[in-house]
Amino acid sequence: MLGRTYDSLDCSVARTLEAVGERWTILILRDAFFGVRRFDDFQKDLGIARNVLQTRLTHLVEEGIMERVPYQDRPVRYEYRLTEKGVDLWPVMVAMLGWGDRHAAPDGPPVRIVHRGCGGPVTDRGVCAECGAVLTARDVRVHQDSASPVRLAS
Amino acid sequence: MLGRTYDSLDCSVARTLEAVGERWTILILRDAFFGVRRFDDFQKDLGIARNVLQTRLTHLVEEGIMERVPYQDRPVRYEYRLTEKGVDLWPVMVAMLGWGDRHAAPDGPPVRIVHRGCGGPVTDRGVCAECGAVLTARDVRVHQDSASPVRLAS
Repeated sequence: MLGRTYDSLDCSVARTLEAVGERWTILILRDAFFGVRRFDDFQKDLGIARNVLQTRLTHLVEEGIMERVPYQDRPVRYEYRLTEKGVDLWPVMVAMLGWGDRHAAPDGPPVRIVHRGCGGPVTDRGVCAECGAVLTARDVRVHQDSASPVRLAS
Repeated sequence: MLGRTYDSLDCSVARTLEAVGERWTILILRDAFFGVRRFDDFQKDLGIARNVLQTRLTHLVEEGIMERVPYQDRPVRYEYRLTEKGVDLWPVMVAMLGWGDRHAAPDGPPVRIVHRGCGGPVTDRGVCAECGAVLTARDVRVHQDSASPVRLAS
């Protein structure tokens, strides 16, 4: 029992929540892992209010989890990419995806994540169930029904 | 780019957030994994308002993630335990802990999770870095500075 000795504030779970705990923020990160980079694409996919999206993206940039990078001149346009610190959130994402697939997907998993190398399914630990490789976001593809596979991560 | 084809609502990350995405809920679950079971202990540890705590615990019971179990008669008293569905959230928890340790713990990790079997440190994939075993909540202990080790999970 930790009641008396454990300092809630001094906990890495709490600190992770400080950075990414807001619900829209996690869905923005999910989209980023699925390859979305541009403001309008986040907005369309999530159906989120533009000002809320801007606030969340700015927060992610301030936290060093995403970076705002120009992708064209005249006029200058920017896109949002995961930094290394952001890509490091991938195990959180696959763990959440795995739990949802198991406990909250009565019609079966809406997307499947597969290892690019061998095509094996990816477990909720981000490990290939086929060949046992410990994977990162860059090693996998996302398959969804009746859509072409997309690469996970920016 | 998933903007047009990907249905945000039909996603296991979104569904996981539906169940456990609220910030207090995740901290309650963290405490539960650290061995806390009783209302007053959650309350003391988190410093959360009693009515908010009650609402969150009730939600977790309704979701089948925790169960309310009597632990004494006359008067009957209840405690809250993780169900199997709840214990399955462990990979989410260790992934968040690992990210926080790496990116949001300037003074070093506040707690260390170790494999009960061999004493090896546990990675953010919930795997023993020493012997390679894929672990569950029941296979590990939590160490914190100047406190005795506690068992993770109910």
